[in-house]
Amino acid sequence: MALVNENYLKLPGSYLFAEIGRRVAKFKNDNPDADIIRLGIGDVTRALPPAIIESLHKAVDEMADLQTFKGYGPEQGYDFLIQKVIEYDYTPRGIKLDNDEVFISDGSKCDTGNIQEIFGLDNMIAVTDPVYPVYVDTNVMAGRAGVLGSDGKFDKITYIPCTAENKFIPELPKNKVDIIYLCFPNNPTGMTIPKCELKKWVDYAKANKAIILYDGAYEAYIQESDIPHSIYEIEGAKEVAIEFRSFSKNAGFTGTRCAYTVVPKEVMAYTKDGEAIQLNKLWNRRQTTKFNGVPYIIQKGAAAVYTEEGQKQIKALVDYYMTNAAIIREGIKSIGLEVFGGVNAPYIWLKTPNGMDSWSFFDKLLTEANIVGTPGVGFGPSGQGYFRLTAFGSKENTEKAIERFKTRLKI
Amino acid sequence: MALVNENYLKLPGSYLFAEIGRRVAKFKNDNPDADIIRLGIGDVTRALPPAIIESLHKAVDEMADLQTFKGYGPEQGYDFLIQKVIEYDYTPRGIKLDNDEVFISDGSKCDTGNIQEIFGLDNMIAVTDPVYPVYVDTNVMAGRAGVLGSDGKFDKITYIPCTAENKFIPELPKNKVDIIYLCFPNNPTGMTIPKCELKKWVDYAKANKAIILYDGAYEAYIQESDIPHSIYEIEGAKEVAIEFRSFSKNAGFTGTRCAYTVVPKEVMAYTKDGEAIQLNKLWNRRQTTKFNGVPYIIQKGAAAVYTEEGQKQIKALVDYYMTNAAIIREGIKSIGLEVFGGVNAPYIWLKTPNGMDSWSFFDKLLTEANIVGTPGVGFGPSGQGYFRLTAFGSKENTEKAIERFKTRLKI
Repeated sequence: MALVNENYLKLPGSYLFAEIGRRVAKFKNDNPDADIIRLGIGDVTRALPPAIIESLHKAVDEMADLQTFKGYGPEQGYDFLIQKVIEYDYTPRGIKLDNDEVFISDGSKCDTGNIQEIFGLDNMIAVTDPVYPVYVDTNVMAGRAGVLGSDGKFDKITYIPCTAENKFIPELPKNKVDIIYLCFPNNPTGMTIPKCELKKWVDYAKANKAIILYDGAYEAYIQESDIPHSIYEIEGAKEVAIEFRSFSKNAGFTGTRCAYTVVPKEVMAYTKDGEAIQLNKLWNRRQTTKFNGVPYIIQKGAAAVYTEEGQKQIKALVDYYMTNAAIIREGIKSIGLEVFGGVNAPYIWLKTPNGMDSWSFFDKLLTEANIVGTPGVGFGPSGQGYFRLTAFGSKENTEKAIERFKTRLKI
Repeated sequence: MALVNENYLKLPGSYLFAEIGRRVAKFKNDNPDADIIRLGIGDVTRALPPAIIESLHKAVDEMADLQTFKGYGPEQGYDFLIQKVIEYDYTPRGIKLDNDEVFISDGSKCDTGNIQEIFGLDNMIAVTDPVYPVYVDTNVMAGRAGVLGSDGKFDKITYIPCTAENKFIPELPKNKVDIIYLCFPNNPTGMTIPKCELKKWVDYAKANKAIILYDGAYEAYIQESDIPHSIYEIEGAKEVAIEFRSFSKNAGFTGTRCAYTVVPKEVMAYTKDGEAIQLNKLWNRRQTTKFNGVPYIIQKGAAAVYTEEGQKQIKALVDYYMTNAAIIREGIKSIGLEVFGGVNAPYIWLKTPNGMDSWSFFDKLLTEANIVGTPGVGFGPSGQGYFRLTAFGSKENTEKAIERFKTRLKI
């Protein structure tokens, strides 16, 4: 008799964005004329920049020609892209990487979801709270999370609260943890971590032989100094950290799919007998066995990010969204709500008024202002009473949404 | 202390194609002037057909325009592609599928590798032998395989020999198995299974509540009648089978990456308490949590397969490779070697001469004829004494290779 993976049955019924979709569909059905503005899902809306489009077209033409056609590529990605990643994203920050320490992939969701496969089931997992749900869900599916309690927490996962009370800076856990997911600039709070605070985590990981899984998907949005763009700016991080980066949010690749993961050869985890094993080798084995590389065409598109024109154009994209972020941040502040993020990230994290819970505020915002956002509690128990807005809409819609906040929302 | 997944350490040191690459590189280094012909890895070599190129270009242009730009798509794939898959690949064979039973993905390697995640660790796995290594390796990595013995078999996996002795038709196992990987037309043997034999497996699965994972990546190469194109042509298969199909080998997508997996809603597996669970729901959860869909551009390219022009053009591609298959098959037969496959598949499976082992024949063929093939034993113990050649080269190289078989190989 074929048995299912019963860990899947421990997952709560519905994924956050599915529930949002359900509520929006119902509202739309009941109010067919409502002009809904979506500031919910973190999906980009601007077209791909011209340099990328040109490179994609060229690559398509290569596939049409017997002489330049590409079949299977290296599962780890083509060197032409890996070299540019290192040259532009790491070398200028004093970080040295070999080509075989960078793995091109089809997305940070996939990578942050799949990375746990190379670790044993007995590791204690720590996540900041609120958190990108994929980190938790994939550990539930693998059997590391235990059981979901009525407090919204899985009993074997360590949740590290990041709230207004601690200025969204995670504190080192009292219990020992083995694998720590950190995401900065943070989704969903839009907050960052200064180098001195990140150093505490690297030191903790070194002292405890723990691993940090560092999600830097929003790195391009960092505006302030002293905010690390890569965890490898912290001394010793190459021994304990795996870093995830993506073209989704800097170059508009959410529907085009390309990202990369850095696994330095120094990063070790251990057998139960204490033997040190290179995680680079295990991830390479995972990727070569269960993945077949990103389409050549798409990798060529991503490589155009690292041209002079490409760099200018993606900066303009980020600037566009950050202008929206400022509009949202200042607009919401002006009506007296407490607001975080939006300075080094495309996410604005607001405290709901009058202690309202996140889903009630979702319904209120949808009903009164026809605006879709994301309930903070959907990202974890410490997100209760918060709400996420994203800067990825058009400037026009963003301005219209803020106008509605000011005029329609009854606080 | 972060622990590794120690199952990875049970994998044999080197992946088949990596070892081939190593030996070829060494030979090339020692013989820089040798003109090596590769009939080894199953990778296509012809350019993408014009209908697909045109569709890819159009999709790239859509991504350049704010009005038609696509961000995140459905993780399961766009309906425009799913509907065509059903309309062209299933409806004409009397198979009815709903849209939400087809999951578009970035490759059958990924899907056949990832599918085991939705099953419990206590299932008894069966594979035909020889077999595509990904089925075994991914179960080793998950911890279902046990330990590798000196016979080349993992002690918890059931190996079902497919050799000349049984005409490459797998026999039902004596012990009970829960999950069965079948691939027809077969990689590596190039052999097929008639409907009456496949029905035995479906009946076995129904009687034992087992699941068949049916890899049909080479379906487009079927030329003879009575060979099932889909396992769902067999009565009752929708209750017990998941089917994998790919654009890699029919449309030349090995470097373009698109495939699909069919999980009918009737297919059930069970909790330990015997509760039936829809695998469709679990796979959907897996894909929505750990995958973010195939690039819009690529899905548009794949959709062009299902146009009048596209259908003609991919048929011409398949015909080209099948002409090569006939050249290889007949040529090798003419020098007195025993040969299988190559009639309904792009793979030719030959018996090595004089009881030579697979790797010795590999070295002999490389040294004497400068031809790279794939040692049968690399696909499992029952592949020992066999050797795989593929029809994916150019016609010129294929003819040249066969000429060398006839003139240079010392048998």
